[in-house]
Amino acid sequence: MPDSLGPALETPLFERIAIIGLGLIGSSIARVARRKNLAGTIVAIDQSLQVRSRVAELGIADEVAASAGDGVRNADLVILCVPVGANASVAKEIGASLKPGSIVSDVGSVKASVVANVVPHLPEGVSFVPAHPVAGTEFSGPDAGFATLFKNRWCILTPPDGTPPDAIARVREFWAAMGSNVEIMTPTHHDLVLGITSHLPHLIAFNIVGTAAALEEGTKSEVIKFSAGGFRDFTRIAASDPTMWRDVFLHNKEAVLEMLDRFNADLNALVKMIKEGDGPGLHDRFSRTRAIRRSIIEQGQETATADFGRLGPDATASQ
Amino acid sequence: MPDSLGPALETPLFERIAIIGLGLIGSSIARVARRKNLAGTIVAIDQSLQVRSRVAELGIADEVAASAGDGVRNADLVILCVPVGANASVAKEIGASLKPGSIVSDVGSVKASVVANVVPHLPEGVSFVPAHPVAGTEFSGPDAGFATLFKNRWCILTPPDGTPPDAIARVREFWAAMGSNVEIMTPTHHDLVLGITSHLPHLIAFNIVGTAAALEEGTKSEVIKFSAGGFRDFTRIAASDPTMWRDVFLHNKEAVLEMLDRFNADLNALVKMIKEGDGPGLHDRFSRTRAIRRSIIEQGQETATADFGRLGPDATASQ
Repeated sequence: MPDSLGPALETPLFERIAIIGLGLIGSSIARVARRKNLAGTIVAIDQSLQVRSRVAELGIADEVAASAGDGVRNADLVILCVPVGANASVAKEIGASLKPGSIVSDVGSVKASVVANVVPHLPEGVSFVPAHPVAGTEFSGPDAGFATLFKNRWCILTPPDGTPPDAIARVREFWAAMGSNVEIMTPTHHDLVLGITSHLPHLIAFNIVGTAAALEEGTKSEVIKFSAGGFRDFTRIAASDPTMWRDVFLHNKEAVLEMLDRFNADLNALVKMIKEGDGPGLHDRFSRTRAIRRSIIEQGQETATADFGRLGPDATASQ
Repeated sequence: MPDSLGPALETPLFERIAIIGLGLIGSSIARVARRKNLAGTIVAIDQSLQVRSRVAELGIADEVAASAGDGVRNADLVILCVPVGANASVAKEIGASLKPGSIVSDVGSVKASVVANVVPHLPEGVSFVPAHPVAGTEFSGPDAGFATLFKNRWCILTPPDGTPPDAIARVREFWAAMGSNVEIMTPTHHDLVLGITSHLPHLIAFNIVGTAAALEEGTKSEVIKFSAGGFRDFTRIAASDPTMWRDVFLHNKEAVLEMLDRFNADLNALVKMIKEGDGPGLHDRFSRTRAIRRSIIEQGQETATADFGRLGPDATASQ
């Protein structure tokens, strides 16, 4: 993966952008916006004093504000980087302060509910172009962000019907400048696809790590000790932000539960094979899964290095 | 993780070792044994002509043999590195050729069934010291092996009652020389602990990747495209060897199904919270899981680098 973000723009894409919520995603956006000159002025808004102080220390924004209502004034682009469940109240708070002709966007992992929660609070003449950068790490907070987070990752835009094409084009340009590949789809379709690629995997990972956490102390310490056998791969995404993920599941219930039904049906079939000693059936199931990983690696969305490269440079990646 | 395996021994631990099955594990053992001078002579036994040719090309053994019965003659240590389901027939094949006073070991991921399947075929005076190196990658075959695979990983020995302490001590010394930390437990306890740390995670990963593989073509290509949202973490262990894993599940049914019952009970509780909109309950569950990852990292069994280091040197690991 190339490290370079390319040259900074000669003219900023937006005169003034306001980022609400300076966590992993918000602070990464600020870093790229600064490094690539995407905004004349970057305003960082966060309700946490600790986060605001840290953002000021890091020097990743031009202005820091505590109040979203004040901070968004005169911004040409406002990006909500808060947990999905907070979007409605933030939208309500900023609605009256938004500049006519400005664009509001977000970075939430669920899109249908965001559209439903934000749109009613926006005044006429303000466009909403929801965005979801499919990127992240297991770390949270302004220190966890970095400028290459979105590089070569997808960013999905889900503009509601009637969004002005010009607003969509400008947000697309913004994310392309972040280094992302931009895709447009409906909010509902987004929620279904991410239900299987992101939400269900997180639910399963939180659950299996939770099952281990609930074991008696002696067994639990053995689980930690011998985790290299597979378990530790689940712990990375199960270390993700609890507030963010609580909101994702509460706001994408239907798609997650539908995908979970499929997962359970498949799991029941596997269990039946194990109980009945159906070796050929198990072998067949376990043979279908390598092709998917190969495709993900071919498309540059994954490392081909053995064991995620955890084993160091001696580990080969021959297949 | 240090790369060095330390200096080679002045005197080999065993005069002659025979490795049966030169896949990821068997070929890695051969590589370390050679580099560290653990054996006077290394005999590589594999039923596949292709594997034998490749082992000869790689130069990781002194002798190559097609027949296990012939290959193990005069060996002081014989290590079975075949899928768990093949142990009984291999043991039967080699039983009559084993040298009195020699030691037989294995590397299987299931231990109670291995003891039951191998011991009856061993002549008097031959000791069985089952071993399980808790290490591996998603790759298979003799090219996938490498000498640092076992470095700083655990190797669990599960000697049956009555095994001579001297034989246990020699196998322990062998694995310590491989760079592993050696632990001794009963076969049954091993199968329970690995059921949760390794077998259940593989079952879940195979299953979720299988669910995605079964989706209609359009959705499947979107799953691959947007896999960075979490899904791709599951694909690594779901790319593991199908034959090995078929055998693991068939030979550790009870412990796997018991752990799966706990997993399902926990999952049902999570689903109930999602359906009922129990935000505090979900947040509480998702908050318990970070501590486990922290412990795994502290014990040197995992990298602290964000996103397994896939994002490159810019990614921070601040929490």
